[in-house]
Amino acid sequence: MKILSEIKEPIGSELIEFNEFFKKKLDTDVALLNIILRYVTKKKGKQIRPVLVLLSAGLCGEISERSYNGASMVELLHTATLIHDDVIDRAKIRRGIASVNSEWNNKIAVLVGDYLLSMGLLSSIDADEFKFLKSTSKAVGAMSESELMSLDKSKKFKIDEATYLKIIKGKTATLMATCCEIGAISASDDQLIHKKMEDFGMNLGMAFQLRDDLFDYITKQSIIGKPVGNDLKEKKMTLPLLHALENGESSFSKKIIKSIKNEKLTKSDINYIISFVKEYGGVDYTENLANKYIQNSKALLSSFPESKYKTALIDLGEFVINRST
Amino acid sequence: MKILSEIKEPIGSELIEFNEFFKKKLDTDVALLNIILRYVTKKKGKQIRPVLVLLSAGLCGEISERSYNGASMVELLHTATLIHDDVIDRAKIRRGIASVNSEWNNKIAVLVGDYLLSMGLLSSIDADEFKFLKSTSKAVGAMSESELMSLDKSKKFKIDEATYLKIIKGKTATLMATCCEIGAISASDDQLIHKKMEDFGMNLGMAFQLRDDLFDYITKQSIIGKPVGNDLKEKKMTLPLLHALENGESSFSKKIIKSIKNEKLTKSDINYIISFVKEYGGVDYTENLANKYIQNSKALLSSFPESKYKTALIDLGEFVINRST
Repeated sequence: MKILSEIKEPIGSELIEFNEFFKKKLDTDVALLNIILRYVTKKKGKQIRPVLVLLSAGLCGEISERSYNGASMVELLHTATLIHDDVIDRAKIRRGIASVNSEWNNKIAVLVGDYLLSMGLLSSIDADEFKFLKSTSKAVGAMSESELMSLDKSKKFKIDEATYLKIIKGKTATLMATCCEIGAISASDDQLIHKKMEDFGMNLGMAFQLRDDLFDYITKQSIIGKPVGNDLKEKKMTLPLLHALENGESSFSKKIIKSIKNEKLTKSDINYIISFVKEYGGVDYTENLANKYIQNSKALLSSFPESKYKTALIDLGEFVINRST
Repeated sequence: MKILSEIKEPIGSELIEFNEFFKKKLDTDVALLNIILRYVTKKKGKQIRPVLVLLSAGLCGEISERSYNGASMVELLHTATLIHDDVIDRAKIRRGIASVNSEWNNKIAVLVGDYLLSMGLLSSIDADEFKFLKSTSKAVGAMSESELMSLDKSKKFKIDEATYLKIIKGKTATLMATCCEIGAISASDDQLIHKKMEDFGMNLGMAFQLRDDLFDYITKQSIIGKPVGNDLKEKKMTLPLLHALENGESSFSKKIIKSIKNEKLTKSDINYIISFVKEYGGVDYTENLANKYIQNSKALLSSFPESKYKTALIDLGEFVINRST
């Protein structure tokens, strides 16, 4: 498996140019907002979303100013959701530094998130990129809808696999699909190619979130900086657990559901549940499904001619299902 | 002065049709979201914003499905900001019923607000109303920018009149300008008319917020359901106070700024500040300025032929500066 910095190599200079472009997009007359936006964007994350836009553009034609515009749009939206997520989860740390809600306060964090959300949707208006907006419209609605679906208490502990897949599609995959579609739109007029890249991104995104949900059951804190059993503590029902509950001995399953429902889980509860999930195939099943999505995504690229961008997108697929970060 | 229900008369049936239209717009597959949206929209506010869209459309041509689309857009955006405002201010009550954050929780309120904000911006995409979006783009960015401007601690107590006017423009007037512009766009292709209606809405919106800020100094709790001195308690520096501080004897002004800056204000502090504001012309000055904005807004309508819509818009201006609710 290649590491992320290797995968990004073919778009190294474009990514630098994008970061400059993005910085300029964020300029505002409001002093406090300027300070916060500079603070938020100083520490870069993995930048998977802009990388997807740029690689898709390269694959389908040429990376241009239009591609940078598209990449800014998704990065703005993604940053907005992270800031609101931190308010929602009362998270103190983001990318190794204090979150906006903890460095400033909730009030400011909600407003900065709103500002970025609006700018994300509207940045494409100045550029007259109506197609970008059309593509994104699906993603943005889907994101908050799916979060709300997962919060619906009345159904939270009765989630089935189909509902779980619908939730992660809205939460993660749809925006990644948008990234690839926008990249394609910025470089080609062929609508079949737009659709193919949207599907590619959707499959990659599904695998991405499945891998994320596996972290709760397979990694050590030291590797990903997020404690094992984190989702479990927050009583998030993800596929590894859902599958094991479905397949495990029913008396065990009932006991586990009951304890998740009613109690604050202790460390030993969590360890017990993790062993249960492994024992009843939850981890294997989820890994296999993630693999399938990546195979699908690869197949969608087969009709494209070989290029450094194609190689990078395939490597990115491998990275997504093997990463420990 | 006519009361609001009288002003709404010429668009009575259209307003009912709009409310039906809006209800349908809000339909989603997500059960919890559906419940919350129905809850939120059951109690209608003054509906000034959709009323502005419909009256402007009537004035400039004809109220059509396009006008309903535009009115939905602004109502979605306005509702989104109210829900987020209640999270920010930890408000328990909105329109006489429990706020979303108190009936459910902050998490859900942030997400529902995000959903409505996105839907507001994107509802016009399905309808291919790119011009609506262009108009709204200014308003939405301006709203969060201006809130953040007013939160900037380093400058909060050194606000001058120009900055205050910039803040209320972003907070309130720009969205009202958008309402009138969108109404005009939905009924006419004449760009001069669009601009005229935008200016009309901007002037009306400035007067609307000035009147709102006067409530802190002139009304009794029983009338508007909001305690006198409410903004003061939250240390919001609005024009009546700013003007009095500028014109009052400097030793008094200094003492007042110091007490607002440092202390939790007692009831007697607040009463003292209110008398100070009245004594040094803060109320009169603000009332005069609101009147000027309404005169400007009226003048902008002079070139339109007489109609029931024109009369209603002029009456709405009178209502805005005389209302006690």
